[in-house]
Amino acid sequence: MHHSLVRRLLPSALVFLAAVGLGSRSAAQSSLTERYRETAGRILGAALVDDEGWKKLEHLTTRIGHRLSGSTGLERAIEWAVGAMRAEGLEARTQPALVPHWVRGRESLEIVSPVARSLGMLGLGMSVGTPAEGLTAPAVVVRDFDELEVLGRKSVEGKIVVYAVDWAGYGRTVQYRASGASRAASLGALAVLVRSATGASLYTPHTGTLIYAPDQPRIPAAAITPEDAAWFLRMREAGEAVTVRLRMEAELLPDAPSANVVAEIRGRELPDQVVVMGGHFDSWDVGQGAHDDGAACMAAWEALTLLHRLGLQPRRTLRVVLWTNEENGTAGAKAYRAALGDDVSSHVAALEMDGGCERPTGFGFSLPGAKEDGQDERYERGYRLLSEIGALFETLDASAITRHGHGTDIEPLTSEGVPGLSLDTVGEHYFDWHHTNADTLDKVDPHDFRKAVALLAVMGYVLADMPETLAGD
Amino acid sequence: MHHSLVRRLLPSALVFLAAVGLGSRSAAQSSLTERYRETAGRILGAALVDDEGWKKLEHLTTRIGHRLSGSTGLERAIEWAVGAMRAEGLEARTQPALVPHWVRGRESLEIVSPVARSLGMLGLGMSVGTPAEGLTAPAVVVRDFDELEVLGRKSVEGKIVVYAVDWAGYGRTVQYRASGASRAASLGALAVLVRSATGASLYTPHTGTLIYAPDQPRIPAAAITPEDAAWFLRMREAGEAVTVRLRMEAELLPDAPSANVVAEIRGRELPDQVVVMGGHFDSWDVGQGAHDDGAACMAAWEALTLLHRLGLQPRRTLRVVLWTNEENGTAGAKAYRAALGDDVSSHVAALEMDGGCERPTGFGFSLPGAKEDGQDERYERGYRLLSEIGALFETLDASAITRHGHGTDIEPLTSEGVPGLSLDTVGEHYFDWHHTNADTLDKVDPHDFRKAVALLAVMGYVLADMPETLAGD
Repeated sequence: MHHSLVRRLLPSALVFLAAVGLGSRSAAQSSLTERYRETAGRILGAALVDDEGWKKLEHLTTRIGHRLSGSTGLERAIEWAVGAMRAEGLEARTQPALVPHWVRGRESLEIVSPVARSLGMLGLGMSVGTPAEGLTAPAVVVRDFDELEVLGRKSVEGKIVVYAVDWAGYGRTVQYRASGASRAASLGALAVLVRSATGASLYTPHTGTLIYAPDQPRIPAAAITPEDAAWFLRMREAGEAVTVRLRMEAELLPDAPSANVVAEIRGRELPDQVVVMGGHFDSWDVGQGAHDDGAACMAAWEALTLLHRLGLQPRRTLRVVLWTNEENGTAGAKAYRAALGDDVSSHVAALEMDGGCERPTGFGFSLPGAKEDGQDERYERGYRLLSEIGALFETLDASAITRHGHGTDIEPLTSEGVPGLSLDTVGEHYFDWHHTNADTLDKVDPHDFRKAVALLAVMGYVLADMPETLAGD
Repeated sequence: MHHSLVRRLLPSALVFLAAVGLGSRSAAQSSLTERYRETAGRILGAALVDDEGWKKLEHLTTRIGHRLSGSTGLERAIEWAVGAMRAEGLEARTQPALVPHWVRGRESLEIVSPVARSLGMLGLGMSVGTPAEGLTAPAVVVRDFDELEVLGRKSVEGKIVVYAVDWAGYGRTVQYRASGASRAASLGALAVLVRSATGASLYTPHTGTLIYAPDQPRIPAAAITPEDAAWFLRMREAGEAVTVRLRMEAELLPDAPSANVVAEIRGRELPDQVVVMGGHFDSWDVGQGAHDDGAACMAAWEALTLLHRLGLQPRRTLRVVLWTNEENGTAGAKAYRAALGDDVSSHVAALEMDGGCERPTGFGFSLPGAKEDGQDERYERGYRLLSEIGALFETLDASAITRHGHGTDIEPLTSEGVPGLSLDTVGEHYFDWHHTNADTLDKVDPHDFRKAVALLAVMGYVLADMPETLAGD
């Protein structure tokens, strides 16, 4: 439905007033789709021919590269972004945060017997290292935690546990990366090797953070490829004993200074009310952090820049944050929350894009305290408002509103009641690239990126400008 | 068309005679499809429930692993195969060949400036090494040979050339791997880095052999990932100078003893006439040589074993050869040809499977000296015979006969007139895995493998048994 008849009947001056959000008196009668149709058109048009956002992403991935917390790469990226934002006329600043400073160092993994062979691997983030000579021990291969428990201490003590787990989606498989080390340590294992959490591999190990249980010895942990996990399993089935040597120089240095990057267009009427959106600026120390999460950061930034260039100042403050240290500590998210003081009620919505920059399909939405089951009137009201905004993206095939919005960096806000949104994508290959050397710019489609800029700009603007709020306060 | 009526009308004894190929008097009247329907059914049925072939492939890839010429892996594989073939009651022997003995040694590639970074790489097979301290030089990035020539000696001398070529299919792109080193050496380059010949990558370098021109200095050459090739290109476009350091210990040792593995079922009537089929037993020194070409070797072997077990002895000799040293020298193919003496007329057909073990679709066919354009009666006659055999694979969706058959190891035979066949597959991902650490058993579908066994067994048997020959002599 295009409402072209309605549009033709309205005087153009009124359309303009409604479009820029001044026509708040008519809010009850007319949908957000109608009220923001004209403005959204201007924003979408600008985004769809934009080249500057892609140039930013090109600079970030090509000239700066990956950006682990504590690295010079991350600090260079922060300095560059704040400077370039200011040069564009945005109000931009850094918001300091002390971040964990984990350093990978050199690392290697070898089969010692029955046949010597070097294996692809990546130490898991935050892992401790091995002694300089490495750890050499028999491998104990398990398919899951149940098999580990059945084996028990007598079979595991003094060994290196190999989690040759099946791929059962990221959420299921990643638990072995997160807690596999401590589970094995509780039975006396010396170290663990974890099948990378991915459904596709061309001998590509995936890193990511582990979480040590406070009551267990901290043992080294590394990701292996699905190919080698399958090999370990076949060797087990063949009854062949395998001995491995793991060497990791990994260490945790004292916390390092870092910062969130914060840029905003101050609200025209209600500057103390804020819509915040963004992604995380840090990445793992592999690849270029293109999909995770450089593209999101550059898309949110470019969205703000486009609005600024179009002279669009929403009713409330629209803020872009490039959070630091999402991958291994969330110090940036905590610092952002801490700066808000006693309560977060200044924030009417928080949006994070952190699922890669494949083709956008719409937005996910959660309203803290409200059920997403279609029965909760408070949630449904917000859902309808978002669907009205989503309708502006119908021609981009990106109008879907899904019933769950989440982001690690907005979690300190949403956990205290701020409506949470995430940008949804088709999500076909994200976990093939995520946390690997293959997370590089060549995997990002410039058209998908432009669509993300378009969606973030319109959604950010409307959320900050519309008289209503998603929470209905 | 199932010809069930015809079959019902024939006395079963005659069906049997025709099926095992004794009914040669009726050859002129009845198609190969009809004559071999029953026998093919027995072979196909045995192949489709076979587990022994897969166990062989599992052993080869899991317990032995990759098999570069000159390596202990290859020699272990040869010894194992001959022994196991004999244990199965096959006539098996080795056919000695001296093979090049190239050894990779340690190797690394780093960006030295503007930002230090380690790159994924694989030295190209047969490359010379660098000095122990490596070669450190500015990178000169080109998209193709034309750009290299335009730059000329003044821009290339003393530099490391990066071929950041587009993927234009294996045949087009691989020429940079094959001759890129010598082309750059002719302009004074110190070394070359070549984008891996693949259309898909998860930061996966692909090795493979290079060929040094006899009149140029031999300079080191390594494959880089498509991701890094794209990065080099973007740095060039940004006007950023990049300095790299390449270290390779690669060296060519004196030729090493190796061998083809030869197993056969001697012909019932014409034992001196031979149908030969197989694959190459050597692989690159990465991954497991599963698709390239272990699966083919195990499929051809298992095909012969199944025929032997079914008591099927064709009119002519059916021979399986696991050629050595296809990847970097073809010493095995040359030794096989040399052993035939003055002429190859004993061979009525040669079949090589060397395109990976994805889902088989049929066979390719070439008849030396005959055109494949549909106008050559000699070729068309052979094509019709193969199509009649192919019809036996209709239900496996593998009955297509394509107008080109090729194999590196059968080339010394086909170049002298022997009809050449190759097993065709869907060929969707072969070049994603080929010559990489990702060429591992987990990429082979056991059902595709069984189908390959089935097709090779039936095709080998019928070609060896049918009164006709493809060449029509």
